[in-house]
Amino acid sequence: MDGLDPLAECREWFALPAGVIYMDGNSLGALPLATAARVAQVVEAWGQDLVGGWNRHDWIGWPRRAGDRIAPLIGARPGEVIVADSTSVNVFKLLAAALELNRGRRIILSDADNFPTDLYVAQGLERLLGGAAELRAVDAAALPGALGDDVAVLMLTHVNYRTGAMHDMAELTARAHTAGALALWDLSHSAGAMPIALNDAGVDLAVGGGYKFLNGGPGAPAYVFVADRWHEQFAPALSGWMGHARPFEFSGAYEPAPGIERILVGTPPVLSLAALDAGVAMFDRVDLRLVRAKSVALGALFRQLVEQECGGLGLRLVSPVEPERCGSQVCYAHPDGYAIVQALIARGIVGDFRAPDVLRFGFTPLYLRYADVFDAVIALRDVLASRAYDHPRFRARSRVT
Amino acid sequence: MDGLDPLAECREWFALPAGVIYMDGNSLGALPLATAARVAQVVEAWGQDLVGGWNRHDWIGWPRRAGDRIAPLIGARPGEVIVADSTSVNVFKLLAAALELNRGRRIILSDADNFPTDLYVAQGLERLLGGAAELRAVDAAALPGALGDDVAVLMLTHVNYRTGAMHDMAELTARAHTAGALALWDLSHSAGAMPIALNDAGVDLAVGGGYKFLNGGPGAPAYVFVADRWHEQFAPALSGWMGHARPFEFSGAYEPAPGIERILVGTPPVLSLAALDAGVAMFDRVDLRLVRAKSVALGALFRQLVEQECGGLGLRLVSPVEPERCGSQVCYAHPDGYAIVQALIARGIVGDFRAPDVLRFGFTPLYLRYADVFDAVIALRDVLASRAYDHPRFRARSRVT
Repeated sequence: MDGLDPLAECREWFALPAGVIYMDGNSLGALPLATAARVAQVVEAWGQDLVGGWNRHDWIGWPRRAGDRIAPLIGARPGEVIVADSTSVNVFKLLAAALELNRGRRIILSDADNFPTDLYVAQGLERLLGGAAELRAVDAAALPGALGDDVAVLMLTHVNYRTGAMHDMAELTARAHTAGALALWDLSHSAGAMPIALNDAGVDLAVGGGYKFLNGGPGAPAYVFVADRWHEQFAPALSGWMGHARPFEFSGAYEPAPGIERILVGTPPVLSLAALDAGVAMFDRVDLRLVRAKSVALGALFRQLVEQECGGLGLRLVSPVEPERCGSQVCYAHPDGYAIVQALIARGIVGDFRAPDVLRFGFTPLYLRYADVFDAVIALRDVLASRAYDHPRFRARSRVT
Repeated sequence: MDGLDPLAECREWFALPAGVIYMDGNSLGALPLATAARVAQVVEAWGQDLVGGWNRHDWIGWPRRAGDRIAPLIGARPGEVIVADSTSVNVFKLLAAALELNRGRRIILSDADNFPTDLYVAQGLERLLGGAAELRAVDAAALPGALGDDVAVLMLTHVNYRTGAMHDMAELTARAHTAGALALWDLSHSAGAMPIALNDAGVDLAVGGGYKFLNGGPGAPAYVFVADRWHEQFAPALSGWMGHARPFEFSGAYEPAPGIERILVGTPPVLSLAALDAGVAMFDRVDLRLVRAKSVALGALFRQLVEQECGGLGLRLVSPVEPERCGSQVCYAHPDGYAIVQALIARGIVGDFRAPDVLRFGFTPLYLRYADVFDAVIALRDVLASRAYDHPRFRARSRVT
């Protein structure tokens, strides 16, 4: 299967440590070989050009340029995407914008199992705005029924971080619109692992992180999508100078920039942009349909092998079986999930654990091989069958899981 | 004077381009020699340790660690400072916190000539909260009189970006407290150029940027100070997972972390933290009283030489003459300010321009020499006397000034 893989050569683009099978690119993507030089170049340019670098290298235009580079990965047009801040901060901006765009409605509707930070941000806005905003978090199955005429915005993460379950973006966006709500999608767990078609689905607003499948590095900046039709319709709640129409006039009154730039707040993080850009640039040479096809094949092989090798060893599949309903990860529940993940890591099989009991195995088709999936399942079987995980050193919790 | 300068050797810590006299460290600090290796090291650790880097290198604790390193520069205790986001985003967090801490009061009082982004952020909050917040921006001289019993927070930038004028932090903080208001200080244009004594002055809240006198690189992350006594008293409006008490439990309900960590929102920007840390680390070896003394001496020499050499050439001093009222920059107004600054840059004298007509000359005592000040003034005299600036190529505006 690796011999026939049209993406096999992409693995050469990454600096992967020997002896590691990396199945956690859905948490932190691996290091592209090009990144070190890109970052070093920018550090050198800072030293050489000092403040002049903002103009000479157009650092000031980089958030937009990086956004335009991400746009084709998510089905957006040039000028609809910009890189800024963190995913969480951007969720805040877009929720506030949605409440303004859909004035008179106060409900933020979401999946109760959405990635927690998205819910936390909505809770913060709820507290800040008192009665003018309210988070309604329901089970995924109950979402369509909860789309009442008080819903301002439906906020969902495309692929569930804990289970891999994927929402039908087009269908739920259409339902939101029918109910008079806007649709805000968090693409953190899907962009870069599959083609996404925001405009085809009619999506209004979206965010996503830079450090998972986009390989932008730990804590890489995030990106924001606002559909063209909304650009002029809201005044940003987080209104900083980089979102001003003419920031270097230093006027005392905020006036939003005409386009997507109004989403900006503070000064762009140039070193981080260099690393993110190196990660995203790889996708210039990749067909995302091939990425998705390999992701589906890797996931199917993994499930099939786990079924075959690990039956009766206590794993319970929590990911959907149908490929069209699953993102680029396969997850199992096990009461000893945390220790099992640690025991696997000790053998060089790096997945991760998500509370309370989920083992996550992520598939980054650019660098994961079919043979890796085979080896990972054999190791998983051995760890489970031997109960090698049942040891205090695998049970000691780290700060970050 | 350079021969007697106790800080003379500090210049060796920076990568400064030949032929440049850099008087714009108050906009973007120069590159520390240590930075490239620090950043490269973190990039390599990412490649080698992948997601395990969060624990192995305690990247997750870096915002707090970097904050503790900044704390002594600004007169804060360990645990009162944390690195996060941009200055603008942090101003938003602290204004929202101040309105909560001082419930029943709705006025944000500020200097009308405050750095625009601080005012813009207040204006965004004003729009977002409707009647519950209002920015009152008055002339600096009118601030004490405007401290009515409706003022929730006095928000000021310690050193004015355009003139260098420095507020009396202790006095204005005391006046704010007498009026029942909190005091929020933006230290972007002063931290790293002089000792700051937040706790001695009784300051409640503060923010500052990382890319000016702290030499953290273009768009470096910013920092936040919250006095210990307020930590448990507010729920962050920007409530993201990194500010949660137990982020990796992934619970659905936000619960703020007990200490300064509640200020965090999204995932820490690790590469940017490496660069900021390298910049801040230099201050471990520097006495800020010496830095301030040299800054004052450089400024006095500059003013004296400009008076002596550039009299009658149309410059009007806009900075205070008294050292205790002036930050680490000296500024002049001139109708052709923009072109003059460009003509100076063409000669290797890098200051900057601030609309509408201000030439700014910044003094970073760690790398600026007395001889540089002399050479800069001679160049300024020549440019003014010869009207060399009166040329289209010096009048063409760049995107960033």
